[in-house]
Amino acid sequence: MLNFDFYNPTHIAFGEGKIADLDTLVPKSARVLILLGGGSAKQNGTLEQVMQALGDRYIKEFSGIEPNPTYETLMQAVKEVNAHDIDFLVAVGGGSVIDGTKFIAAAVYSKTDPWDILLTTGSDVTKAMPFGTVLTLPATGSEMNNGAVITRQETQDKLYFRSKTTFPQFSILDPTRSYTLPPRQLANGVIDAFTHTVEQYLTYPVGALVQDRFAEGLLQTLIEIGPALIEKPDDYELQSNLMWTATLALNGLIGAGVPQDWATHMIGHEITALHGLDHAQTLAIILPTMLDLRRDEKKSKLLQYAERVWHIHEGTESERIDKSIAETRSFFEKLGVKTYLSDYNITASNIDDIVVRLQSHGMNSLGEHNNVTIKISRKVLLKSLFKR
Amino acid sequence: MLNFDFYNPTHIAFGEGKIADLDTLVPKSARVLILLGGGSAKQNGTLEQVMQALGDRYIKEFSGIEPNPTYETLMQAVKEVNAHDIDFLVAVGGGSVIDGTKFIAAAVYSKTDPWDILLTTGSDVTKAMPFGTVLTLPATGSEMNNGAVITRQETQDKLYFRSKTTFPQFSILDPTRSYTLPPRQLANGVIDAFTHTVEQYLTYPVGALVQDRFAEGLLQTLIEIGPALIEKPDDYELQSNLMWTATLALNGLIGAGVPQDWATHMIGHEITALHGLDHAQTLAIILPTMLDLRRDEKKSKLLQYAERVWHIHEGTESERIDKSIAETRSFFEKLGVKTYLSDYNITASNIDDIVVRLQSHGMNSLGEHNNVTIKISRKVLLKSLFKR
Repeated sequence: MLNFDFYNPTHIAFGEGKIADLDTLVPKSARVLILLGGGSAKQNGTLEQVMQALGDRYIKEFSGIEPNPTYETLMQAVKEVNAHDIDFLVAVGGGSVIDGTKFIAAAVYSKTDPWDILLTTGSDVTKAMPFGTVLTLPATGSEMNNGAVITRQETQDKLYFRSKTTFPQFSILDPTRSYTLPPRQLANGVIDAFTHTVEQYLTYPVGALVQDRFAEGLLQTLIEIGPALIEKPDDYELQSNLMWTATLALNGLIGAGVPQDWATHMIGHEITALHGLDHAQTLAIILPTMLDLRRDEKKSKLLQYAERVWHIHEGTESERIDKSIAETRSFFEKLGVKTYLSDYNITASNIDDIVVRLQSHGMNSLGEHNNVTIKISRKVLLKSLFKR
Repeated sequence: MLNFDFYNPTHIAFGEGKIADLDTLVPKSARVLILLGGGSAKQNGTLEQVMQALGDRYIKEFSGIEPNPTYETLMQAVKEVNAHDIDFLVAVGGGSVIDGTKFIAAAVYSKTDPWDILLTTGSDVTKAMPFGTVLTLPATGSEMNNGAVITRQETQDKLYFRSKTTFPQFSILDPTRSYTLPPRQLANGVIDAFTHTVEQYLTYPVGALVQDRFAEGLLQTLIEIGPALIEKPDDYELQSNLMWTATLALNGLIGAGVPQDWATHMIGHEITALHGLDHAQTLAIILPTMLDLRRDEKKSKLLQYAERVWHIHEGTESERIDKSIAETRSFFEKLGVKTYLSDYNITASNIDDIVVRLQSHGMNSLGEHNNVTIKISRKVLLKSLFKR
């Protein structure tokens, strides 16, 4: 096991009806700005529950934080915070709204250009406005970590920051608030949580037996519940397990003391920035090819993955690895998500632009061994074009 | 999944050499009292590392906190805190020293008789002195939770309290600090962590798929590493996995959203109070009988335990359950811990006294269904006397 630090002070309030706990979780004297994405929280009654629980503390709402939240939109929210003496933020939404709220919380106190928060990946942030979240879309894990990915519309730069000051004070996870999600968003959530887990698990063994077991537990749970949940989005047991799994997949726990990969995510971010694919769609495309092309360095963990997660016990080592990767791809497809670039009208002629962006963001030594060069990323992209 | 709240702000610093991090984890201006048990931390060099990292912040040490820490001893430490203007506590030891430090931290600010903290199970505690821990004995999980069990020597009452204010600010987990532990203490640690997990897992299903997988992961890890660790206490991989497993077994995570039992612990506490057995010895005696006698109400989870943890796939339901309980007992015995009361010279004539104590502490409706009456506890004790 590698040395690690684990610190996560976010208070999780989990279960049906927990939105009412806002009354005790938010200070009585707070002046709250509610942050929202599109209209779904309004339509499905979540916003009303939040406003009711906050009572007089509710001052204003700010809607329109987009998927892959943009700096430009978020700076509008910062203006609202200042204009209305806001001192507490409540994000109501999924990962984008929560990521955006983290940026707003830090930007409010920024003494330089707030974009510097991204350029320094948060290392300069010393203070942030307190905030909580009401999760409506289980996927990113943002509700229980301190990281955020923000896009600059102007340049389509998609950058990451985190800070000890940007953990949510609390996150309310009420599985019934996701009942109205369309299949596409549920599938995205399952794939996002699955890939987060794989990025922290499928590297090389360091004798971290507990972390391996936990990661395998999350993957097995997602495999068990994923397809059923798409069919029955209002099943409490399925929704609650997706919600808690997605949160635990990226709250620091399974990544503590182990190597981490994240190459799939980095390539995926550039595809989203250039072509507008959903984040999870890019992961479903890149992950299987990435595992296949790096099968030698990941051999030991791929065999463990095959055996413990997919229960593949027969065949040569190479056959078992093949089968585990095929099962992974087939799982994504079963959720209704296509797994080749060509399925999204991205062709060989688009690869260069993606690669140039990776290069311009310094992504020339990705992965747990820092050996995923630009050349290898290009190969991954080319092999992800269509089924051979 | 049941509704739950999860909150755990303890910062874990894990790995060899992490004691040096005390320099950043403890405020520069702090006046520190170090709390110790017996002499082992002095003998194996841990205390020296701690003192070196603290430098001028080290004011005094207080040694002699006993296994099953007593109110009487801890109140002596409270006097030391007051006499030397201490404002930060550092516990160096196992669960007893850490539990004791939690009590000291709360008792320092107590406005009534500090024993009231136990009588109210901590509900009246509003403030505690900040403290951190350096763990030397992986077992109880006290290093990452806010609970403590304290014994009153005078009456042999063994009571529990917890408070939102008594989480360690940090806990340093350096697996090399356990290399010198004798086999008995290592075995106790494995059994303690194992039983903590079982108390939160082996109840009845509530569709908490993630929690089940995590609990099973901890149990499988303990089964994998336990016997090997007794043979090789200075194996870093084995020690690090025990340390992290024991911490995760009782930090609130696997118990969130599921029913919990704890009947085995409650009976065990009384045996320790009356007969001085190690805590883990009492668990190793009571747990197998408890599972056996309550096999009907626990049937579904016992079958899951048999299959997923012990890989028992053959036989009737009853046979599989029998086998899983036999494997559990055999695992404890393999660790060198005897599993019958008679092995410790406790006979049928001692049962009444234990039962009277359970009664006097109101333990007449234990377990996840509150149906473990005094009568059933007596039956468990009688069936735990010797092998039939």
